[in-house]
Amino acid sequence: MDTMGRHVIAEMWDCNIEILNDMGRIEQIFVDAALKAGAEVREVAFHKFAPQGVSGVVIISESHLTIHSFPEHGYASIDVYTCGDIIDPNVACNYIADSLQSKKLEKVEVPRGLGPIKVPVQEAL
Amino acid sequence: MDTMGRHVIAEMWDCNIEILNDMGRIEQIFVDAALKAGAEVREVAFHKFAPQGVSGVVIISESHLTIHSFPEHGYASIDVYTCGDIIDPNVACNYIADSLQSKKLEKVEVPRGLGPIKVPVQEAL
Repeated sequence: MDTMGRHVIAEMWDCNIEILNDMGRIEQIFVDAALKAGAEVREVAFHKFAPQGVSGVVIISESHLTIHSFPEHGYASIDVYTCGDIIDPNVACNYIADSLQSKKLEKVEVPRGLGPIKVPVQEAL
Repeated sequence: MDTMGRHVIAEMWDCNIEILNDMGRIEQIFVDAALKAGAEVREVAFHKFAPQGVSGVVIISESHLTIHSFPEHGYASIDVYTCGDIIDPNVACNYIADSLQSKKLEKVEVPRGLGPIKVPVQEAL
């Protein structure tokens, strides 16, 4: 398999606080996001923190999706990393932003597996 | 909890090919890396691909560590993300690089949870 990959780093602000604290719902959103992007889900691991917050990952054949949510700040820290050039990680990222009802999405896409790491100018959406 | 975090993106080349294909050993390296950095391990999920390659994650209280290995290229794609300012993700990252016997490590540190994403100039080690 080629080492080339696309890694979208996303900061999602002003999200729905209840969703950010609902582990079951987040897990479903993440599995759906992977499938909508055309990825193959391999492992799913999520953790609920006390008193609030959820961390989790979906490992896909093509790499991973992760979340760390901070309901008290309306914030979720998201990574969507897909190897190869068939799957677009932005499809999954945008689905997650919509599902978390984020009103402010900041993201950058980092090429992976190509040698020196180069990060393009941030897209502000 | 404060949203501030440090995310080290690392490309590890010229690694030991046998280790890159040994899921049990990689899992142990990652748990040890988290503990050496002072993190608290919450969830561990790894997957072995056929014919080769390992993907996995350690979810820590402070965020996550991930790997995607490509033994056929001697390459491992690594992320170490730690929330807060107590834990240094570079401690875990460097331990992983040593353990995978990488002869060429490229990494950048991306601040998370602070607003617009700013990526400093890459460190070439």
